[in-house]
Amino acid sequence: MSVRYGIIGLGNQGTSYLYNLFEGDRATDAVVTALCDNNPAKIENVKSHGLKADVAYFDNYIEMLDSGLCDAVLIEVPHYSHPEMVMECLKRNIHVICEKPAGVYTKQVREMNEAAKNSTALFGMMFNQRTNCLYRKMREIIADGGIGELQRVNWIITDWYRTQQYYDSGSWRATWEGEGGGVLINQCPHQIDLVQWVVGEMPVEVNGFCQYGKWHDIEVEDEVTAYFRYKNGATGVFITTTGETPGTNRFEVSGSRGKLLCENGKLWWYKNESDGFEWSKTCPEGFKKPKCEKVEVETDGNNPQHIGIINNFTAAILGKEELFVGGTDGINGVELMNAIELSGWNNGEKITLPVDEERYIAELNAHRAVSRLKVVDDSKVANTLGTYGGK
Amino acid sequence: MSVRYGIIGLGNQGTSYLYNLFEGDRATDAVVTALCDNNPAKIENVKSHGLKADVAYFDNYIEMLDSGLCDAVLIEVPHYSHPEMVMECLKRNIHVICEKPAGVYTKQVREMNEAAKNSTALFGMMFNQRTNCLYRKMREIIADGGIGELQRVNWIITDWYRTQQYYDSGSWRATWEGEGGGVLINQCPHQIDLVQWVVGEMPVEVNGFCQYGKWHDIEVEDEVTAYFRYKNGATGVFITTTGETPGTNRFEVSGSRGKLLCENGKLWWYKNESDGFEWSKTCPEGFKKPKCEKVEVETDGNNPQHIGIINNFTAAILGKEELFVGGTDGINGVELMNAIELSGWNNGEKITLPVDEERYIAELNAHRAVSRLKVVDDSKVANTLGTYGGK
Repeated sequence: MSVRYGIIGLGNQGTSYLYNLFEGDRATDAVVTALCDNNPAKIENVKSHGLKADVAYFDNYIEMLDSGLCDAVLIEVPHYSHPEMVMECLKRNIHVICEKPAGVYTKQVREMNEAAKNSTALFGMMFNQRTNCLYRKMREIIADGGIGELQRVNWIITDWYRTQQYYDSGSWRATWEGEGGGVLINQCPHQIDLVQWVVGEMPVEVNGFCQYGKWHDIEVEDEVTAYFRYKNGATGVFITTTGETPGTNRFEVSGSRGKLLCENGKLWWYKNESDGFEWSKTCPEGFKKPKCEKVEVETDGNNPQHIGIINNFTAAILGKEELFVGGTDGINGVELMNAIELSGWNNGEKITLPVDEERYIAELNAHRAVSRLKVVDDSKVANTLGTYGGK
Repeated sequence: MSVRYGIIGLGNQGTSYLYNLFEGDRATDAVVTALCDNNPAKIENVKSHGLKADVAYFDNYIEMLDSGLCDAVLIEVPHYSHPEMVMECLKRNIHVICEKPAGVYTKQVREMNEAAKNSTALFGMMFNQRTNCLYRKMREIIADGGIGELQRVNWIITDWYRTQQYYDSGSWRATWEGEGGGVLINQCPHQIDLVQWVVGEMPVEVNGFCQYGKWHDIEVEDEVTAYFRYKNGATGVFITTTGETPGTNRFEVSGSRGKLLCENGKLWWYKNESDGFEWSKTCPEGFKKPKCEKVEVETDGNNPQHIGIINNFTAAILGKEELFVGGTDGINGVELMNAIELSGWNNGEKITLPVDEERYIAELNAHRAVSRLKVVDDSKVANTLGTYGGK
């Protein structure tokens, strides 16, 4: 038995799944049966591409949901619409995978999560980077106490270089009205999710320093430095930009028993023979450190990315596997993004989590009110294959 | 002809120079002729150690300066006294090398620098890390435009692990009254100097997040995260602590034509074929980056550290070499430390450089007023050889 999928949104991401995963015969026990876009040119794009699958086309997603053609849906539309569409699916008990981010602001995501409680359908998030063996292993080691008590988190993820042409390619791109944010909400939702999923907890306070249209002619942030404080006093720094090339991707988490370093596709574990806190208290010498061994961590080597999420979702629908990424998990990343953005709008003000939902919406709406949507032919579709670092 | 050196302060650092450099026959054209400490036990320490050199001992440094026994002096006393002692040397036209930091607050350092103008003596700073071939090469490449326009500076220097015993080993250590700061002023003056010397400019705005007595029973900061903004809009992050082990030492500077990465004793240069700013404006594709070549940079391999500074200073006195590190350079690091500290005291407030001298002194004095000097036998001396990362 195959699960019948519909895709809402035939832009870069939606067509990537369609062509590379479904038409590429990588989706197990799954067929694509329905496609939807409110832009006729995007439907024509797909028709002219030609498909093996027998699909129905819709310009209205509610009609697609009501057609009876879909057991499950992939939502691949601009961020603001994610929660609304997810809720329409869940209301009809249609299984749904939401593209990242879960939404633009926490209030809409919280409402979505509440709606999920009343549905029998499965709700998943496209956090494909969670399928990466390196991040899964980091999370496991930290959860097992492998680095002791958390001391410091540091992620420099500045290899999101984008040209001006990228930003000019969609009217909604990099606008407060169209996306509700910049590098944080478009490029970084994965890392923002991972930084809390891998570490196993959310920061409790955030200072965000955002630079708006610094490296590109855009109105949203294309560079961010954020400072985190955790419950136990540990701190963190998260740096990202779309303006640097070649950029860096280096994720380090330090604790009292050592550190984990993920860089260049490898994971290194620095293991202290003794706990650094205890050592400090008892060592009779001032400059001496506990012995430390550096090992390259072996993983299961699997990094299936998007198809891993989709195949797990299908298997979960068919009762064959546990759901790997529950959709309600999406709120943490949105919370963290909102905190950074809110701080950035307010000159680096210290924001305590959870973010004040109403304040966030009010300030976001003030930005949306003066947002300038660009005049762009939105029917063009780019090939994003190979841009997300997966296999 | 040999230059006759006096050393003021026979603690860890002063005795290290005495035993390892002068007695170890590594100081060229130089002899040690006078030693001074106001703690008789420290003079006894040296006497009981036994010296090859024929030296006179003083418990009052003014008497040593007036003895006629010294052409040059090394100042190795707690930080607050550096400017005063330097000025007493310069007033007598006695050459002087000041230990880092130049002072605790900019006002005293500025006064010292003004005094230097009226002296015929040479004034040097013990910025021994500037002798490191890696940092010299980084500075040279950046100054030559090798990474284009500055975009981002990032130094994680968290391998300054110290035990509680270290802090308990001196009454003045890690107190506002004794040192005027913590990891910034004691462990990090080198990196704080280098971060501006290598990059070639000072930040214009600083936010500092300091944690006081977080990992140790001390009153000053043992963890710092600072956020910098530069004149052209570039940003930077500087992270340091004495509470982590094994810690990290990773210095990265990115620009429009690539980046430099200094880590694990190596220097890597990522060279872009085209300027990233220009590429962004003209490339017709959204996700494409300029070609980039990664090369390991060859250096002259020299890293003489303290003896390099002392031998250069001697040679400069003898007219054989140019002075490598002028003493008046010390103010930049103090400026940057003061900015971070001031911001830290004020909940991460954005501080514009130059720091308001009078405000800094007022807030520092407020901390000194409630400072608790410890009851410790200050006559003990530790061997610091190998703790500073040099040869």
